[in-house]
Amino acid sequence: MKNVGKPVLEVCLSPALLHLYNTKGSVVVIIDIFRATSTITAALHNGAKCVIPVSSVADCIAIGEAIPDSLTAGERDGKVAEGLQHGNSPLEYPADFVNDKTLVLTTTNGTRLLHMVENAAEIVIGSFLNLSVLCDYLLAQNLNVLLGCASWKDKFNLEDTLFAGAVIHRLQHAFEINCDAARAARHLYNSSGGENFIEFLKDSSHYRRLSAFGLEHDMEYCVTPDLHPVVPRLKGQQIVISVPE
Amino acid sequence: MKNVGKPVLEVCLSPALLHLYNTKGSVVVIIDIFRATSTITAALHNGAKCVIPVSSVADCIAIGEAIPDSLTAGERDGKVAEGLQHGNSPLEYPADFVNDKTLVLTTTNGTRLLHMVENAAEIVIGSFLNLSVLCDYLLAQNLNVLLGCASWKDKFNLEDTLFAGAVIHRLQHAFEINCDAARAARHLYNSSGGENFIEFLKDSSHYRRLSAFGLEHDMEYCVTPDLHPVVPRLKGQQIVISVPE
Repeated sequence: MKNVGKPVLEVCLSPALLHLYNTKGSVVVIIDIFRATSTITAALHNGAKCVIPVSSVADCIAIGEAIPDSLTAGERDGKVAEGLQHGNSPLEYPADFVNDKTLVLTTTNGTRLLHMVENAAEIVIGSFLNLSVLCDYLLAQNLNVLLGCASWKDKFNLEDTLFAGAVIHRLQHAFEINCDAARAARHLYNSSGGENFIEFLKDSSHYRRLSAFGLEHDMEYCVTPDLHPVVPRLKGQQIVISVPE
Repeated sequence: MKNVGKPVLEVCLSPALLHLYNTKGSVVVIIDIFRATSTITAALHNGAKCVIPVSSVADCIAIGEAIPDSLTAGERDGKVAEGLQHGNSPLEYPADFVNDKTLVLTTTNGTRLLHMVENAAEIVIGSFLNLSVLCDYLLAQNLNVLLGCASWKDKFNLEDTLFAGAVIHRLQHAFEINCDAARAARHLYNSSGGENFIEFLKDSSHYRRLSAFGLEHDMEYCVTPDLHPVVPRLKGQQIVISVPE
């Protein structure tokens, strides 16, 4: 339903809080900066035919076997999960590798949130890698927006919240915002050293966890704005590119 | 259980996330700045014998009738709830009124969170009104601490989170903190204009809601540090003062 006044923008900080929000008719943005939504955005911009998000390693293997030219990917505890071929890094999917392939991806947090959303007008994928084009897309829709942070096993995380703040910083003039989580996200973004998120995030739980696996470069890549300017959206069971470049 | 190293401090941003934290053997601080925990702190410092927190108006009436020298209190939608005698403002309970009385109090958020906590070593009440003495108390216990924000109907709120940040700002040297909610709360506190919270909070959901009821003065009172230096704690079904002044 199109809004007469300004559409409403809210932020959901954890999948465990999703039931508090009315997603009917809204655009829901799935945010899992480290690293599911960054990887999905990169793979699609680099030419992947589509991404199929699945909840379990077993589903990932089964679907990968059923689809020609597919890649199965997913990590558990920082390593490629047993039975899968590839990991969860956006850097693993350059154009000459992923072009025209179907990426079947299982992740701990982002995939789960995506499958929890009901009745949304649209489910799209947000990451710093597609920040500007995503914001343009949300502006053009003129629908209510819920920014959904995948968090870490339902616990609040900084990087997803900072990204929500970056979106709000750009869209606040066009939306009605009466949501303390949105205010906090915006304030965190505006007061965390401009675009130099990685410094701010170096003390975060996820940075600590992933840097123990040697993934610092991955995380720097994931917080770089606009490297992959496409808007992935869920269409049936597949994530595809919504807006051509 | 006493800690060998530094005890752990975490922040729970909503009762709907409480199940993610292990409260066994911890000190849990209930935070409901606007206004349950502020009112409890003020009433006890002003001489109330104890506060009995109850979930419903019906329970409040029944318990009030059973206890001599009791006051029943609680609001719904900014007004004294039908059947109760008093409201949920800390300013309603000066010493000459509340001294030696039992305050039976029902509130929407704080009471509920308090009743949800299981297996804690101790449940105490936090508010700006008892900030310093609460921090001293938490330091002295040498136990893990969970700062539990009552939030608003399970949605994140700014004022409870800012208070958590104020506590962390004072205690971070003595605790192990690997919790993004704690990092965010600390950052919000440190970057929100020092002690001038009320300006920062004027755009918050709760400030807007309560100021529509003419409660600006209440809120200014609730964010004033150390007006009521006592540590209320749950003892059976009653909240009493733990540490004499």
